[in-house]
Amino acid sequence: MKDKVRIGMIGLGNRGSSLLKDVILSMNDVEVLAVCDLYEDRREAAAKLVEQVQSLKPAVTSDYKEVLGIAQIDAVVIATSWEAHTDIAVAAMEAGKYAASEVGGAYSLQECWRLVETYERTKVPVMIMENCCYGRDEMMVMNMVKQGVFGEIVHCAGGYHHDLRDEIAFGKENRHYRLKNYMHRNGENYPTHELGPIAQILKINRGNRMVSLVSMASKARGLKEYIQREKSGDAELMNTEFRQGDIVTTIINCAHGETITLTLDTTLPRPYSRGFTVRGTKGMYFEDNRSIYLDGVHDQYHIEWKSQWGNVEQFREQYEHPLWKKYLQEGVRGGHDGMDYLVFSAFFECVKQGTEPPLDVYDMASWMCVTALSEESIALGGQPVPIPDFTNGKWMHRE
Amino acid sequence: MKDKVRIGMIGLGNRGSSLLKDVILSMNDVEVLAVCDLYEDRREAAAKLVEQVQSLKPAVTSDYKEVLGIAQIDAVVIATSWEAHTDIAVAAMEAGKYAASEVGGAYSLQECWRLVETYERTKVPVMIMENCCYGRDEMMVMNMVKQGVFGEIVHCAGGYHHDLRDEIAFGKENRHYRLKNYMHRNGENYPTHELGPIAQILKINRGNRMVSLVSMASKARGLKEYIQREKSGDAELMNTEFRQGDIVTTIINCAHGETITLTLDTTLPRPYSRGFTVRGTKGMYFEDNRSIYLDGVHDQYHIEWKSQWGNVEQFREQYEHPLWKKYLQEGVRGGHDGMDYLVFSAFFECVKQGTEPPLDVYDMASWMCVTALSEESIALGGQPVPIPDFTNGKWMHRE
Repeated sequence: MKDKVRIGMIGLGNRGSSLLKDVILSMNDVEVLAVCDLYEDRREAAAKLVEQVQSLKPAVTSDYKEVLGIAQIDAVVIATSWEAHTDIAVAAMEAGKYAASEVGGAYSLQECWRLVETYERTKVPVMIMENCCYGRDEMMVMNMVKQGVFGEIVHCAGGYHHDLRDEIAFGKENRHYRLKNYMHRNGENYPTHELGPIAQILKINRGNRMVSLVSMASKARGLKEYIQREKSGDAELMNTEFRQGDIVTTIINCAHGETITLTLDTTLPRPYSRGFTVRGTKGMYFEDNRSIYLDGVHDQYHIEWKSQWGNVEQFREQYEHPLWKKYLQEGVRGGHDGMDYLVFSAFFECVKQGTEPPLDVYDMASWMCVTALSEESIALGGQPVPIPDFTNGKWMHRE
Repeated sequence: MKDKVRIGMIGLGNRGSSLLKDVILSMNDVEVLAVCDLYEDRREAAAKLVEQVQSLKPAVTSDYKEVLGIAQIDAVVIATSWEAHTDIAVAAMEAGKYAASEVGGAYSLQECWRLVETYERTKVPVMIMENCCYGRDEMMVMNMVKQGVFGEIVHCAGGYHHDLRDEIAFGKENRHYRLKNYMHRNGENYPTHELGPIAQILKINRGNRMVSLVSMASKARGLKEYIQREKSGDAELMNTEFRQGDIVTTIINCAHGETITLTLDTTLPRPYSRGFTVRGTKGMYFEDNRSIYLDGVHDQYHIEWKSQWGNVEQFREQYEHPLWKKYLQEGVRGGHDGMDYLVFSAFFECVKQGTEPPLDVYDMASWMCVTALSEESIALGGQPVPIPDFTNGKWMHRE
């Protein structure tokens, strides 16, 4: 077992630079040997920061292949635009480096297969860094599911409800990849924050699998109206028609008869939520009013349900996930309510031990493919499309 | 204009008898001349009640055609099982009697067309008695939509989230039609409580229409588990496999690009809700935590949204629907938070004035057909199915 992990950071935009600063550089067992971005200002800023904290100068490059060529590097963190994740993850596996890939959706089924086939040939692990699998409520609910508190799970729902109009409309200034995706594509472009925890609950790729999906998209109005108000001086943007519908609803059907609904919801005004909902024969968890409802304990008509809003807090003592119990004692660290620190700790632990990551290439492929398939379904007027079995039957045996 | 409406009550189960007792017999301008049900005990109880309140004995029959044959009767109220609604409504129109049909879903597209064609031939109105179109929050939100508070409406959602396991499992004892429907069918069997208000917001059949839908159903587990616990002595029921999935999700696509998602959710434990959600370019209404979010007023990250839960109350003074303002002053009456009284008042007013009802045969056909179409879509693995234009083009001109 290694006592230190030596990494290269690839992609230093908003996400990559904050991961570096708030999470990775705070870890004593991680050394950043290289920083890589297409933009000079980003890589210089990152190099400076690394040098300040680690007292050693990292390699600085715009070519991720150079990072993969550094022999001492054990692993790379990929926080680039969505469209570069697969190419870099595949190249990392080929180069024998563990890859931590930030989340995003696939552009084709073929890129998902490429990830799987490269892994199967090289046996070099890649982990999809779905931080929400380490969310406090998500983990508590998973713990409750495991203990049978909700009975047999029948249906789950989730959404990426995040008003990103500002980020997208100022995408040229921010050099953010979402802008072009919203101009050219129409689909469930960011499914994994909600799908990751749900897939774990439903044991996807471990005794269950997703079989088919349908998607429909609403019209695209939110961004257009926002730009008319906030960017009226930008003639090009003012004349842009966005393809991406404001709300994309997807229904997924699983091998054991469960359904999952996903909602992409990023260009209309609303409060942030992941809309996490778990429905079983004995109870329900519902993020949007932070409530737990248990059969025989709560009353379905009780004062408009209101008295139960926020009652998740009453379940903490009994059901808090052991990982979070420990984490709360030690002190929660880093961004996104502490989830980032946990998911990166899990990854670096695997690199040190040389083990398989908890969220593996089959998870990555099956979660990411939802994006490409939802685009297809929408293009076909809501046609159901099959979800491949990326394990080629191994899902029936995997634990 | 008539000063009294003379009616026949057809169907005196739970719904029909409570409507009679709590709503209809409290109205001074309505006289019940006939009561009709297949079960003797129900019609005798109703007849007794009518006689007590009105001091005149109604006709008592098990044959709705006898009711339609009574010359003095102006209108009939149809509160039978779902599968009898259309036959009776059609016969009522043929007999020249206004028909108030309780809500439910269609079994085929053809029955919806039969309603429309009978109306177009006879010009005798039928109204679908969707009480939720008269709900207090629903009407306030409609008022806000009309005033542009939420901007352009892009997406709406709703559900029939009502734990009916007890009603269904004891369906033999209760003589309730849901039991057989859950044994034999699988679809969105009760869409109108949420779809009615949404259709009004999206001006369905009045400048807009529903174009296609997809549905998927989860496995059926809730009822089975409930029966194993609560009815273990009933060998027949214990061995029944229910076809109806616990959760049915439907996505509807509208002519002007809006989407609607509907959830049928009646056989798992949870609190009651209609999940009413309205999304526009300037704001959102969300029933499940009774909140309103307005662009530029509220903050998407503000203390986990929680501080806004229940804030609909702050909007009452400015946006309460005029009908409800008046109603609250006069005193809310009858069942289901006062909605029943309002929808029946609206119907009886039309009968008195000889005018068209606010929820007409085109609304009835297009809302009810969602049930038959969702069964088809599910049977076809989530295939999109077209929603007919029951107006044959008149929706583009209708106000």
